Amino acid sequence: MYSFCNDYSEGAIPMIMERLQEFNKKQNPGYGMDEICDKAREKIQEVLQCPTCDIHFLVGGTQANLTVIASALRPYEAVMAADSGHINVHETGAIEASGHKVVIVDSADGKVSVEGIYEEVRRHCDEHMVKPKMVYISDATELGSVYRKAELQALRKTCDALGLYLFMDGARLGCALTASDNDVSFADLCKYIDVFSIGGTKNGALFGEAVVIVNEQLKKDFRYMIKQRGGMLAKGWLLGLQFLSLFEDDQYRKIAAHANAMAQKLQTAFVDCGYSLFAKSSTNQIFVILPNEVIKKLEKEYAFQFWEKVDATHTAMRFVTSWATPEAVIDEFITYLKQI
Amino acid sequence: MYSFCNDYSEGAIPMIMERLQEFNKKQNPGYGMDEICDKAREKIQEVLQCPTCDIHFLVGGTQANLTVIASALRPYEAVMAADSGHINVHETGAIEASGHKVVIVDSADGKVSVEGIYEEVRRHCDEHMVKPKMVYISDATELGSVYRKAELQALRKTCDALGLYLFMDGARLGCALTASDNDVSFADLCKYIDVFSIGGTKNGALFGEAVVIVNEQLKKDFRYMIKQRGGMLAKGWLLGLQFLSLFEDDQYRKIAAHANAMAQKLQTAFVDCGYSLFAKSSTNQIFVILPNEVIKKLEKEYAFQFWEKVDATHTAMRFVTSWATPEAVIDEFITYLKQI
Amino acid sequence: MYSFCNDYSEGAIPMIMERLQEFNKKQNPGYGMDEICDKAREKIQEVLQCPTCDIHFLVGGTQANLTVIASALRPYEAVMAADSGHINVHETGAIEASGHKVVIVDSADGKVSVEGIYEEVRRHCDEHMVKPKMVYISDATELGSVYRKAELQALRKTCDALGLYLFMDGARLGCALTASDNDVSFADLCKYIDVFSIGGTKNGALFGEAVVIVNEQLKKDFRYMIKQRGGMLAKGWLLGLQFLSLFEDDQYRKIAAHANAMAQKLQTAFVDCGYSLFAKSSTNQIFVILPNEVIKKLEKEYAFQFWEKVDATHTAMRFVTSWATPEAVIDEFITYLKQI
Amino acid sequence: MYSFCNDYSEGAIPMIMERLQEFNKKQNPGYGMDEICDKAREKIQEVLQCPTCDIHFLVGGTQANLTVIASALRPYEAVMAADSGHINVHETGAIEASGHKVVIVDSADGKVSVEGIYEEVRRHCDEHMVKPKMVYISDATELGSVYRKAELQALRKTCDALGLYLFMDGARLGCALTASDNDVSFADLCKYIDVFSIGGTKNGALFGEAVVIVNEQLKKDFRYMIKQRGGMLAKGWLLGLQFLSLFEDDQYRKIAAHANAMAQKLQTAFVDCGYSLFAKSSTNQIFVILPNEVIKKLEKEYAFQFWEKVDATHTAMRFVTSWATPEAVIDEFITYLKQI
Repeated sequence: MYSFCNDYSEGAIPMIMERLQEFNKKQNPGYGMDEICDKAREKIQEVLQCPTCDIHFLVGGTQANLTVIASALRPYEAVMAADSGHINVHETGAIEASGHKVVIVDSADGKVSVEGIYEEVRRHCDEHMVKPKMVYISDATELGSVYRKAELQALRKTCDALGLYLFMDGARLGCALTASDNDVSFADLCKYIDVFSIGGTKNGALFGEAVVIVNEQLKKDFRYMIKQRGGMLAKGWLLGLQFLSLFEDDQYRKIAAHANAMAQKLQTAFVDCGYSLFAKSSTNQIFVILPNEVIKKLEKEYAFQFWEKVDATHTAMRFVTSWATPEAVIDEFITYLKQI
Repeated sequence: MYSFCNDYSEGAIPMIMERLQEFNKKQNPGYGMDEICDKAREKIQEVLQCPTCDIHFLVGGTQANLTVIASALRPYEAVMAADSGHINVHETGAIEASGHKVVIVDSADGKVSVEGIYEEVRRHCDEHMVKPKMVYISDATELGSVYRKAELQALRKTCDALGLYLFMDGARLGCALTASDNDVSFADLCKYIDVFSIGGTKNGALFGEAVVIVNEQLKKDFRYMIKQRGGMLAKGWLLGLQFLSLFEDDQYRKIAAHANAMAQKLQTAFVDCGYSLFAKSSTNQIFVILPNEVIKKLEKEYAFQFWEKVDATHTAMRFVTSWATPEAVIDEFITYLKQI
Repeated sequence: MYSFCNDYSEGAIPMIMERLQEFNKKQNPGYGMDEICDKAREKIQEVLQCPTCDIHFLVGGTQANLTVIASALRPYEAVMAADSGHINVHETGAIEASGHKVVIVDSADGKVSVEGIYEEVRRHCDEHMVKPKMVYISDATELGSVYRKAELQALRKTCDALGLYLFMDGARLGCALTASDNDVSFADLCKYIDVFSIGGTKNGALFGEAVVIVNEQLKKDFRYMIKQRGGMLAKGWLLGLQFLSLFEDDQYRKIAAHANAMAQKLQTAFVDCGYSLFAKSSTNQIFVILPNEVIKKLEKEYAFQFWEKVDATHTAMRFVTSWATPEAVIDEFITYLKQI
Repeated sequence: MYSFCNDYSEGAIPMIMERLQEFNKKQNPGYGMDEICDKAREKIQEVLQCPTCDIHFLVGGTQANLTVIASALRPYEAVMAADSGHINVHETGAIEASGHKVVIVDSADGKVSVEGIYEEVRRHCDEHMVKPKMVYISDATELGSVYRKAELQALRKTCDALGLYLFMDGARLGCALTASDNDVSFADLCKYIDVFSIGGTKNGALFGEAVVIVNEQLKKDFRYMIKQRGGMLAKGWLLGLQFLSLFEDDQYRKIAAHANAMAQKLQTAFVDCGYSLFAKSSTNQIFVILPNEVIKKLEKEYAFQFWEKVDATHTAMRFVTSWATPEAVIDEFITYLKQI
């Protein structure tokens, strides 16, 4: 049974697997202080066109989020996020466990609004309330949408005006930057964002997220934070090796573009079959409202995820593709769907 | 230049690398809920002769330690450890960051003493002081020594008498269980210890630690804790695959025995050359007191680690071997050493 | 200028001030282990008709809330509260600083709904999300409303069904239990609630909140938690003395009834003058929607608090009375109001 | 039975009790934003000869310590203290509960040594260990000793050289500044210390500690920290009133001098009777080694505290005096002692 449940079902791209064999018995210094990590950092700086940013490699996304936020904020400071933000819903309170409140701001399609930020900063007006100090956004969002360059510029301007840090969770950054409606480049990120992550886990790596720190104020002693929160991999070269592979020859964007193409093909097929979308996505996650009996039939051959109950007879379901999704599988699925 | 700096310089044993290629493109459920993880858990339960223990796979050692301790203790409860304990010295305050004090107990050769435990429990007598609730030991210890079965029994008895949990950090468990002076078996662990880890990172895996929870009281909702602390690997099957490989055909002990043998050969050579030991080790880490000029000469060809200044002209240095250390390298080193 | 800004502007009732003089130079054991505290605990147990509950005295409300919640919950467990709940809005993230998420549940008039609890427990279904474990309610609520006995019974039933603790913040409990629409007695509290506080600060004391723990599971080592969080008063007898005075001769309810009567007289006057209420209160806080020019005139003679902007020309304002509010002041205010 | 158990057995000096009656029914703004607090702050600034320091009033000592430390340090930073330091022993892990390790430094007579600080900073050399960032000292120390001006200067120089904050816990500051061997003035404190507390609880107040922040870097948003940690007293004027009274007419030092004189008289009597001192104190706590049968006889008439077992027949006991200890009681005690 083929699974569209998520984008981390499979392993890594061939180049990573080859290099892993090659480097496996070489000796390397620990904790990311090795040559492969250095090369990977340089390569990413080059792609980002930002030679001054700091780059750290961490194992997972929740770990990256909690380490960045715990490092940046003083105890009474809060991070603002959309209601659907990963840190708000799906990290088992990791941010609160580090002592910080997640303040929900107005959002649409998973995207934080500038008005929402102003409103929350205005509401939190004295020392009886937390002090919002960081804005957390995800690109692509948890609903499959992406930020336009004008939106990032507006967020930057807002954060500058209000003295806030802007943090982008890039767990699905590859899919964001290759979406049909995207106009943001790698180089733009360092212009508008203070700190962001580049997701490997969901885009071609076995595991790993790169944290890119652009703002000088956030750079100090970040390695202490990684170590304290349990995120410093002893064999750190494993992460360097993967990110180096992902950023050579534009692999990172190429494989993400494939994932998007597969998901979009699926989405189009659903629409063609007359089903409506729960959210319009341009990336590798799609959200479709389906009659419950259709779901039952699809589940005989495919795995995919419950998203939300819509009414007594309809449910929104999520389908996710990845760098590894074969087009043949998509075609078979569409054939099967049309038969129903 | 060959490095004896640590036991995590190289990658994984061949079986792991093969299986990685094999499983790379298969689809697997996320977060350790897959078949390979199930098999690995069953295999380890079998080796431990303990079908009722819970087994969880985490990425690293600090993460395993902080998650176990944060899960087991109420906010005012403390963990006791030797002064040299990894959680006390080398985890950047990860335990304190989870809110708990590390109370230092009397120890010798890195091993916690029963008297020390009694003394600290007696001293912490009311609500103005933390309440010691857990004993943390490492086997092998940070100084290369191992616990004898009688010592574990005495610790168990002490913990039962005082209402304490006994937690063993098994980052180097393989080397402990195959040391020449060891009389502890895998099956003994579940008899005497409430919760322990089985280190993969330092013994043949790319990364990974298995946490084994024997005590029923410590089992509840441990997966919530893993997720919250950022330790739940999306592609959890990577960990299952590695631990399954390590525990088949007694690989875990076989490769550790090799690491021990290499270190012991080194240690003997140092003693034969007339150098004294800083600590007498029976495992894969050895600690030798060397004249500073000897160190300088050795450093031309080999890397190894500063441990402690002994006097104006002597320094204690640490040499570590691993599953991957070739005997030929050891022989060359000894030849070189004898020439000095 | 008279202030209706809050209910903690003045000091303590005469009996407390007298006893303070009397006890000032006597020697007493520290930390609440003295005879006056013992007597106060017994007196409260008697009033509550619950001889088995534990009673602790803390200095302030935020401290009481954070200590109770940090003591009751494991790290990944969350507390549910109304959006307007004090712990959610006005404690500078004290709960999150202790590591726990505050999950917002559906509410009306500041009161948590049973459906809201069920909905949130249903939504938080696996280890990627926090686990709701406690329901926080305030009586009187932050909007001046009170819980009916049937509502408490329904909450109790819900908490039993879902395995949740029910925690009542009684910062304004006196006003709640003496509201015109109240049918809850002191004795009912121990029947339906697991742990609650009895506010002194806002009802006749210089400072102090009594925490009453009914549920056996929540009693263990609570004094350790108080001490760790900085809430254990050295001269604890100051708190015992105050609570003993408040609970003798039913003082606690008598003075709260006065505060309510004063506020209700104000509310009636506003309604009589044709102004509408932002929320209908039966306790000592009232919320009135006033034209901005009326506010300006009132502010010349009286202080009161901004609550919320309603429209371009109207604002909701809060007026609070206390045990010390003289009826003459209320009468003068009403005369002044009618002139406007 | 008269108690020498501690210095917080009695209440407050007469001036405080009088003013309390006077202010009790006046209305005051909450949370320390009132006129009495303003006056108290000005008065203390004047006495300290430091018009630019920030002054905050908190209820208790543990609360003051944890709030200052949690506010000053980033998550991986640690505070250094003597083994006997209050934060290390008697605050139930409050500092660790705020996430920070207490690193023990070499000390003598309860006083932190400069060499000890250098040694610990040297040992904590990379991101695998916490980063010492603050030095915590108590004056008077927990063993009754006081810092000389030259010692404070040396600590200041050390902290400047190493980039550390110097924090003084002044729970018994009055007794320190009036000890016979003291040469430190109020004005010196702001010259050498970054942040310190002035204890009220143990020197004439009902309760209360003033936190004085001299270093600009530590001032920002301290009120947020106070509120978050539960230390912001609603009726903050109670604290202002007490500190204003304590600092008028040099009361604070006068009453402390009395406490010292009483303790010193006791200490001299013990020495005259041939008993040896466990620690030589110049302040209001004294530590005497007594034969166990003498202790039994003294305990028939007086209460005092066990400190440490010395040998099979001798025990070190602590006797504490306060501003309220009558000289007649001391004289009676000495008569009784001599009879034994």
